[in-house]
Amino acid sequence: MADRVKVAVLGATGLVGQVFVKLLSGHPFFEIAYLAASERSAGKRYVEAVNWVLGGDPPGEVADLTVGLVKPDAIPGDVELVFSALPSSVALDVEVGAARRGFTVVSNASPLRLEADVPLIIPEINWDHIRLLEVQRRRRGWRGAIVKNSNCTTAILTLSLKPLLDRFGLEEVFVSTMQAVSGAGYRGVPSVAIIDNIIPFIRNEEEKVMNESRKILGTLRGDHVEPASFRIYATCTRAPVINGHMETVYARLARSASIEDVLAAWEEFRGLEGLPTAPAKPVIVRREADRPQTRLDRDAGGGMSVSVGRYTLYSERLLRYIVLGHNLVRGAAGNTILIAEMMYREGLL
Amino acid sequence: MADRVKVAVLGATGLVGQVFVKLLSGHPFFEIAYLAASERSAGKRYVEAVNWVLGGDPPGEVADLTVGLVKPDAIPGDVELVFSALPSSVALDVEVGAARRGFTVVSNASPLRLEADVPLIIPEINWDHIRLLEVQRRRRGWRGAIVKNSNCTTAILTLSLKPLLDRFGLEEVFVSTMQAVSGAGYRGVPSVAIIDNIIPFIRNEEEKVMNESRKILGTLRGDHVEPASFRIYATCTRAPVINGHMETVYARLARSASIEDVLAAWEEFRGLEGLPTAPAKPVIVRREADRPQTRLDRDAGGGMSVSVGRYTLYSERLLRYIVLGHNLVRGAAGNTILIAEMMYREGLL
Amino acid sequence: MADRVKVAVLGATGLVGQVFVKLLSGHPFFEIAYLAASERSAGKRYVEAVNWVLGGDPPGEVADLTVGLVKPDAIPGDVELVFSALPSSVALDVEVGAARRGFTVVSNASPLRLEADVPLIIPEINWDHIRLLEVQRRRRGWRGAIVKNSNCTTAILTLSLKPLLDRFGLEEVFVSTMQAVSGAGYRGVPSVAIIDNIIPFIRNEEEKVMNESRKILGTLRGDHVEPASFRIYATCTRAPVINGHMETVYARLARSASIEDVLAAWEEFRGLEGLPTAPAKPVIVRREADRPQTRLDRDAGGGMSVSVGRYTLYSERLLRYIVLGHNLVRGAAGNTILIAEMMYREGLL
Amino acid sequence: MADRVKVAVLGATGLVGQVFVKLLSGHPFFEIAYLAASERSAGKRYVEAVNWVLGGDPPGEVADLTVGLVKPDAIPGDVELVFSALPSSVALDVEVGAARRGFTVVSNASPLRLEADVPLIIPEINWDHIRLLEVQRRRRGWRGAIVKNSNCTTAILTLSLKPLLDRFGLEEVFVSTMQAVSGAGYRGVPSVAIIDNIIPFIRNEEEKVMNESRKILGTLRGDHVEPASFRIYATCTRAPVINGHMETVYARLARSASIEDVLAAWEEFRGLEGLPTAPAKPVIVRREADRPQTRLDRDAGGGMSVSVGRYTLYSERLLRYIVLGHNLVRGAAGNTILIAEMMYREGLL
Repeated sequence: MADRVKVAVLGATGLVGQVFVKLLSGHPFFEIAYLAASERSAGKRYVEAVNWVLGGDPPGEVADLTVGLVKPDAIPGDVELVFSALPSSVALDVEVGAARRGFTVVSNASPLRLEADVPLIIPEINWDHIRLLEVQRRRRGWRGAIVKNSNCTTAILTLSLKPLLDRFGLEEVFVSTMQAVSGAGYRGVPSVAIIDNIIPFIRNEEEKVMNESRKILGTLRGDHVEPASFRIYATCTRAPVINGHMETVYARLARSASIEDVLAAWEEFRGLEGLPTAPAKPVIVRREADRPQTRLDRDAGGGMSVSVGRYTLYSERLLRYIVLGHNLVRGAAGNTILIAEMMYREGLL
Repeated sequence: MADRVKVAVLGATGLVGQVFVKLLSGHPFFEIAYLAASERSAGKRYVEAVNWVLGGDPPGEVADLTVGLVKPDAIPGDVELVFSALPSSVALDVEVGAARRGFTVVSNASPLRLEADVPLIIPEINWDHIRLLEVQRRRRGWRGAIVKNSNCTTAILTLSLKPLLDRFGLEEVFVSTMQAVSGAGYRGVPSVAIIDNIIPFIRNEEEKVMNESRKILGTLRGDHVEPASFRIYATCTRAPVINGHMETVYARLARSASIEDVLAAWEEFRGLEGLPTAPAKPVIVRREADRPQTRLDRDAGGGMSVSVGRYTLYSERLLRYIVLGHNLVRGAAGNTILIAEMMYREGLL
Repeated sequence: MADRVKVAVLGATGLVGQVFVKLLSGHPFFEIAYLAASERSAGKRYVEAVNWVLGGDPPGEVADLTVGLVKPDAIPGDVELVFSALPSSVALDVEVGAARRGFTVVSNASPLRLEADVPLIIPEINWDHIRLLEVQRRRRGWRGAIVKNSNCTTAILTLSLKPLLDRFGLEEVFVSTMQAVSGAGYRGVPSVAIIDNIIPFIRNEEEKVMNESRKILGTLRGDHVEPASFRIYATCTRAPVINGHMETVYARLARSASIEDVLAAWEEFRGLEGLPTAPAKPVIVRREADRPQTRLDRDAGGGMSVSVGRYTLYSERLLRYIVLGHNLVRGAAGNTILIAEMMYREGLL
Repeated sequence: MADRVKVAVLGATGLVGQVFVKLLSGHPFFEIAYLAASERSAGKRYVEAVNWVLGGDPPGEVADLTVGLVKPDAIPGDVELVFSALPSSVALDVEVGAARRGFTVVSNASPLRLEADVPLIIPEINWDHIRLLEVQRRRRGWRGAIVKNSNCTTAILTLSLKPLLDRFGLEEVFVSTMQAVSGAGYRGVPSVAIIDNIIPFIRNEEEKVMNESRKILGTLRGDHVEPASFRIYATCTRAPVINGHMETVYARLARSASIEDVLAAWEEFRGLEGLPTAPAKPVIVRREADRPQTRLDRDAGGGMSVSVGRYTLYSERLLRYIVLGHNLVRGAAGNTILIAEMMYREGLL
């Protein structure tokens, strides 16, 4: 694996950063060459800087890397690809700076996701949107580029909606979520706040779901994406589970469907072939009465598959189902890496 | 309090039964004269038979009562009112037997709730449905009577819908719940099943919510209730919280509303006056961005108020909100006792 | 209640501060006249500044108080008593400043607890240590005074040990705790860290338990306290419970005991009479095989009683038991208020 | 793998049974040929009979096996080894019946563990006790044999004690545990009982720990095991974690030690080589201040290693530490399989 692409992970000590590090350990295309975190961590060995919370220990291959600063100038020149797990507050400046310096940045951070010339990608859904990069380079004059991963809830939702949209059309979607605490980062949700409790509020999350879903499911028209035209409403709550976002979906279809049609749409939805992080089945249908469940199904497909179940057609055009996915893998680091794998294969790095 | 009405509690050692015992302790109208449970418990002192899980100890006034059998014949003749917290599997026979023997049974158990001549009552909403008792006596020839409390999720939901229905009409309601484990009884949800997990299935619950809501919010027409005509869809999940059911509601109104109208509808919804268990405000509006929360708000109004919040009008007729209530109090024992208090005051015992 | 003593609460928006506010609401001796918090909160109404997490809403009587700064100079002159719920990092300077200005400070913060001239008090155990105040005034020249509440784990432990020490003497005590997350304050334990987990480390806690216990159970000798002479070893862990610290205790007694002797020692341990916050029984013996339990027993005696159970005498001098108490009430605000009530009654304010 | 030994798993649908099935999937020595469960399950395909709670789905290779009855006569004749995950109430008769019929039974169930002629084995600790099988065959006249796995808490504890016993001797051990809910089986601990709670009682567990530990750490003397002579006291509590038992240990050593000696004793403790389920390091030393943690360390060594940390020498002979292990793997199915692997290698099947 001597000729792997050297990559950087910015925000490497945070929760999403740790998942990046774990998923990139032993990766056949990519090799971690640079880990960056806040000033408090910089200069330490990774194993000393990180409060590793994924179980066991950090991968041996990165344990002794010295953590660098989160500054565009600090990224070594031989890095070809920058993964960003930065918090929103610092992401914009650093990512733009890195793109200016010529780095390709694939980012999990929210800034720029809705910019007209920034691809917002779930590879199995809208890989063609990557062509926005040409628009981006033209307009912004960056030597590098920025590609965005969506919000976690959106990634899980849109994977379940895409097969429905393609076959039946969508008119109206009502979503209600029960999201894991890890979605807010390590310090995001105090235990006093969430044990024996549900908190029905996650700042900006509902807007993200509503806006990002329509962009991802939209259509590339020359230099921009025309958002999908269905109406979507989202209510987001925080529940006392560590990982895994569950979402109840009521979807009014544009055209009549039978339940067999619906199941076929999901089961025939194709995975990407030949990529290390791509699951064989992006959408897994659970036919049991009580699945998917958060703890039992979040790791399906290595955390890259979403699981659907509890499907009911109340009428020919009104469908209800539950979808569940891993917020830190498909909803964050895993999907970001999958974008990079596609770019690698298509010679876009 | 020498002249209090003597009451029996059937199913007194279960979770709902314990809440009955707690709420009836020191009650100004009612005095517990008989506690019944399964054969395993019968013959023991209550304090020995019960695995008291509400904190502290059982009320002193019932601690030494001998637990009797759950049989209509075993209920002492001087009991005037029977509260039933029986499991569905045994409730029907026992309750009908007690009604035949002349007892007025106010029951939290599900059988008979949808029978045309059985009142299904949330006192603040549809007290007038109590007149079905005349039909019931006529048709069934019982010397006693059976009145029903609704399913827990339904009680909480309908209290929030009633003010909306009255002012704006309802066309369509999409509900998604996050329900407490206590709703399934003491042994209902194993801890291995629910810690760090959400289970999106509660047997028969969704059907109960859909059917009971429309009956409760329906209109008494002579000898029957005409169900409310809106469409309602419910998805029920179990979350790792002990008490308190939270529900996300999307409601399409029949007529346009402003958010001020909506808040006024809820805030002006009247409580019952002069009854020990009736809360001053059946519906409490929380204006904070992140309320109601399960643990913080389930005890509002002694567990008899429901709390609404997170309200948004997406358009003039499409409203979203969260409602939360205590599943064992307003959703079970508390509402049942409130029905009995109304009957007591109106001379129906 | 026009002539109640005016009190200040420093650190009033934190978790312990909120418990102070709740317990002081409607207090017959004390009236909150000043609430102080960090700069972020200062200038706001209390109800706006606080993230109230105790359920429901802040007491009406303080809701509209303007939050002031945590500075000795900012405390109004008509305040006679200052309660401190300050974090350790800022407590020392502020408390000493307030004592210099003439205020009597009763504090839950850890600095100074082990100073020779600072009384560290559990009123039922060592009220006589309050006489150290004379030494304190003499040595320090403060017009006011500082009295300390112990660490939460220590308060619960020592209440269970005191009756044993008095009757049988103690040679050696091994403690192992399972502590609630609220003990670390609102942001102390992230939910990602503790859901489905036990963390066997609480910074400085074991040292506090070992040192403070021996001071509290020690003997006043003129101008200092001679610590109790038994050996004590403590291991402290954090468990996913909100409130309530449970402790396993192995105690080697100095003299032989029977189990009846032990139970008598606990049950005959006297509460303080005539004080609003003093529980009738400081130590409650639970004889059930599976009590005390954290959630069921933490509120015993309004959170001011500790509950003991699971007692076994392995041999005549080796006793094992479990003790449980509310870390925010007996372990913090409640005990601090009880100290103040004693001082009030004895004319020490 | 055509010549693998055919094995049966009794109690295959329970929690421990599921772990057996998972660990035996693809095992190089053993092939599941028979799965048995209660009458309710018998006759169904395994995938239909089991409520699989380990995440994902049952292994494909057993999904379609028909579940048989838990009867000695029902075990197919070509089975050479019987794993028992039976509940205590039925284990004795079935296991003895199977041993009479000639099967070698390796069992996780508690009956017979303390019988003089029944080996109770943690392979890394006391493999030599397997020679009790000769005594067993002689005395009981069985064609088959019964070998026992210990109680879960005991297995974890004794692995940490063995290196200490060998180097320093032990005089007295005080243990306090925080045990996972899975230790009680799927229905063992209701969620209402344990969310936000600690229950300081597990029936018979403390006796098991005290008795089994001394047998396992005892010395084979001809036809019996002479128990280790140290005194041991155990207090067992149930905490809201799914898997992983944590134990606080205070150990008084017979001879003086330095902390370096103690760490060396643990780190030099040898694993078994060449066995599929044997971890490289049976005892892992965590040097961080806050490890081992239940969720982070329970899967160490595939669940077969125990992790020790928080070690302190209060004096030369008084050691404190924390030990943690996976109760279903090292504490149950995993250790049982390891016993069988040793027997297979030594030709004892």
